[in-house]
Amino acid sequence: MTPDMIGYLGYLAATLTTASFLPQAILTIKTKDTQSLSLTMYTLFTLGVFCWLVYGIYIANEAIIFANAITFILAASILSFKIYNVLTNKE
Amino acid sequence: MTPDMIGYLGYLAATLTTASFLPQAILTIKTKDTQSLSLTMYTLFTLGVFCWLVYGIYIANEAIIFANAITFILAASILSFKIYNVLTNKE
Repeated sequence: MTPDMIGYLGYLAATLTTASFLPQAILTIKTKDTQSLSLTMYTLFTLGVFCWLVYGIYIANEAIIFANAITFILAASILSFKIYNVLTNKE
Repeated sequence: MTPDMIGYLGYLAATLTTASFLPQAILTIKTKDTQSLSLTMYTLFTLGVFCWLVYGIYIANEAIIFANAITFILAASILSFKIYNVLTNKE
């Protein structure tokens, strides 16, 4: 593969994994219903995506930055709703 | 950050996102119940993780290979159960 093709593969990977997370994110942000989401899992996931983002910036990898910047915003929003719902005793 | 520390950050990211996916994977593989999983989303996700794995191999990035090799095996197992359940009209 040429370096260009490898770059495209990274963006294809980034688009696919981000797209697969979108419907869940949209549903949760719309309904603010986080009852069936695990606080532990979402905390690990959001921290993990944040680490990938910082890692991507350090190794200057555009596909990793692109995928994880979008996913981090979505995951952090969902985690905020979850924490808010837990703190206000809605769950 | 030193190159070593950046490497550790990649492994921390890989461990966190893989760990956050594990409970779902274990539950699904144990129960073989895929009723509440979306075929479209899991197909996109499994394809995406596979692309990340191939991408990681091409750019020779150990953290990307490590995270996506494990996640691919788990996601592909779940997707196989889902397809089997759909094809045998269990869903």
